[in-house]
Amino acid sequence: MIIAVDAAGGDHYPHHPVEGALLALEENDSIQIILLGPEEMVREELEKHDYDKQRVHIQNAPEIIEMSESPSQAVKGKKKSSIVMGLSMHAAGKCDAFISTGNTGALLAASTFILGKLEGIIRPTIATYYPTVKGFRLLVDAGANLELKPEMFAQFGTMGSVYSREVMGIDEPKVALLNVGEEREKGTECLRKAFDELSKLSNFIGNVEGRDILPGKADVYVCDGLVGNLLLKFGESIPDALKVLVQSAVKKSNIDPEQAKQLLYILNSAVSEFNYENVGGIPFLGVAGVSMVGHGGSNPTAIKNMVLNAATCSEANVNDKIVASLN
Amino acid sequence: MIIAVDAAGGDHYPHHPVEGALLALEENDSIQIILLGPEEMVREELEKHDYDKQRVHIQNAPEIIEMSESPSQAVKGKKKSSIVMGLSMHAAGKCDAFISTGNTGALLAASTFILGKLEGIIRPTIATYYPTVKGFRLLVDAGANLELKPEMFAQFGTMGSVYSREVMGIDEPKVALLNVGEEREKGTECLRKAFDELSKLSNFIGNVEGRDILPGKADVYVCDGLVGNLLLKFGESIPDALKVLVQSAVKKSNIDPEQAKQLLYILNSAVSEFNYENVGGIPFLGVAGVSMVGHGGSNPTAIKNMVLNAATCSEANVNDKIVASLN
Repeated sequence: MIIAVDAAGGDHYPHHPVEGALLALEENDSIQIILLGPEEMVREELEKHDYDKQRVHIQNAPEIIEMSESPSQAVKGKKKSSIVMGLSMHAAGKCDAFISTGNTGALLAASTFILGKLEGIIRPTIATYYPTVKGFRLLVDAGANLELKPEMFAQFGTMGSVYSREVMGIDEPKVALLNVGEEREKGTECLRKAFDELSKLSNFIGNVEGRDILPGKADVYVCDGLVGNLLLKFGESIPDALKVLVQSAVKKSNIDPEQAKQLLYILNSAVSEFNYENVGGIPFLGVAGVSMVGHGGSNPTAIKNMVLNAATCSEANVNDKIVASLN
Repeated sequence: MIIAVDAAGGDHYPHHPVEGALLALEENDSIQIILLGPEEMVREELEKHDYDKQRVHIQNAPEIIEMSESPSQAVKGKKKSSIVMGLSMHAAGKCDAFISTGNTGALLAASTFILGKLEGIIRPTIATYYPTVKGFRLLVDAGANLELKPEMFAQFGTMGSVYSREVMGIDEPKVALLNVGEEREKGTECLRKAFDELSKLSNFIGNVEGRDILPGKADVYVCDGLVGNLLLKFGESIPDALKVLVQSAVKKSNIDPEQAKQLLYILNSAVSEFNYENVGGIPFLGVAGVSMVGHGGSNPTAIKNMVLNAATCSEANVNDKIVASLN
């Protein structure tokens, strides 16, 4: 199993991608790593670490796609970037997956263009793990497609079901449509048509509301990318907001500093569920390959988990199962 | 100041509306109440309480609009319902505001039809108080309008600004558009046009993301009703989900039961910010009157706060100021 890692993407390259990739080697013996980026930069970073040189390879990719760059221009213009080279290697069968914490738009565009779409897929999507009281569940789409055709909701539901079953270990995933009410006639015309399309899936449980996400009423929440992106980033902001509110409640109370410390410790462990580092990233669903994007600010642990997750996706043949489910 | 209260709406009528209305009388000497509902029912409920009979009047409204009823049919068919009669009295100048915790759709339809729209308003909207670390801020629209024309975003921003300044006491409210990124070109074509329309407001600060709400980056968050409704209900579900997560973290920890109790107490007071009962409800913005809807499950405290808030809205001439701001 060979995982290609973008060592020139995200907010902390090459340090975090290199360290994260090396950490993954320690947890899964069957993995080899290809690090892509300007050769000298990657080599210098690697020299700071002890690692098994048999299992780590460098692929020189001298061009760097910036986080703020226009996706389509970057992909067309920078053929020697880590993103374009890594995905091309994956398309050529030289690695089993590609992971990056770089420019999400460029990654999605390059993945769709270089790897191609799975048979029958209208548009690939970005799903995201979402914390619930039952553990992580899946939210699709998280921002790749802002305007959806009704059929796309159903495809996202199908892809999310396969992923959550094969990779997240959820036995009989339930798919739900995020809407303003539970009744079939709720929402816009597009959502009512999406409901009809989703009804063709045997595991569709109907519309759910905003209050149903955190209790984990469903396993795969389908929505457009505007809704998904707002909910994703809103969710990420909860732990910090909570700390502010709790600290202010502690100040108003009479508890002593030692108890306050313990309180914040418990709170931290309670909301650690919300920590994306535990999962790292998720592959684009609907592209003919395993191409995974992670948070730009990912730390080495998050990147380690991305590498391990990419290996799982490849091993589980998620894409073959998606194609089979669509037919 | 005469406030008409729907005593036949919500999940707990007549008990909660009647008790809530009487509580409001104790807090504001200048208020009188008209209770609308089946006369016998209201009278029997009133007899359970001690109150100033000079300040409480009953208006018989024998028909009841159920929570699940179709809004347009209910409004057309039930002329003797508390909603239709209360709003008609308000339109005729017999009271200064109408509040209800009944069928939101019926209330919005009846308010628009009976009171009419403010001059220049395309569509009235439902705003909602949203908890942030800076206290409550405003989210507009919360579910009344699922598909918006670009000009409507700007009208919602204007109405939200006036309301937050005049009623919420926010001196120089900042308006923001909820979007998938901060840059002007982000989002759908509709959102880009909405950005242009909102740019005509002097207090528009641009696009904000899901993570900017809880820290209170803006004071008025403008969005379509699908996004607003999902975020509203999601926010309401946070305290319960948090309790589950914290209780599970407490179990895994070694703290004694007394400490655990104190911890949950602090957590409760921290998230009490999220409690809608503190505000109760908010009037429809854009209708020519003060018509306020509250949560169906509102308790007496929530309804008391609705009555007090309706009095404030009427006194502050919010509608005149909205019309002046639009021109």
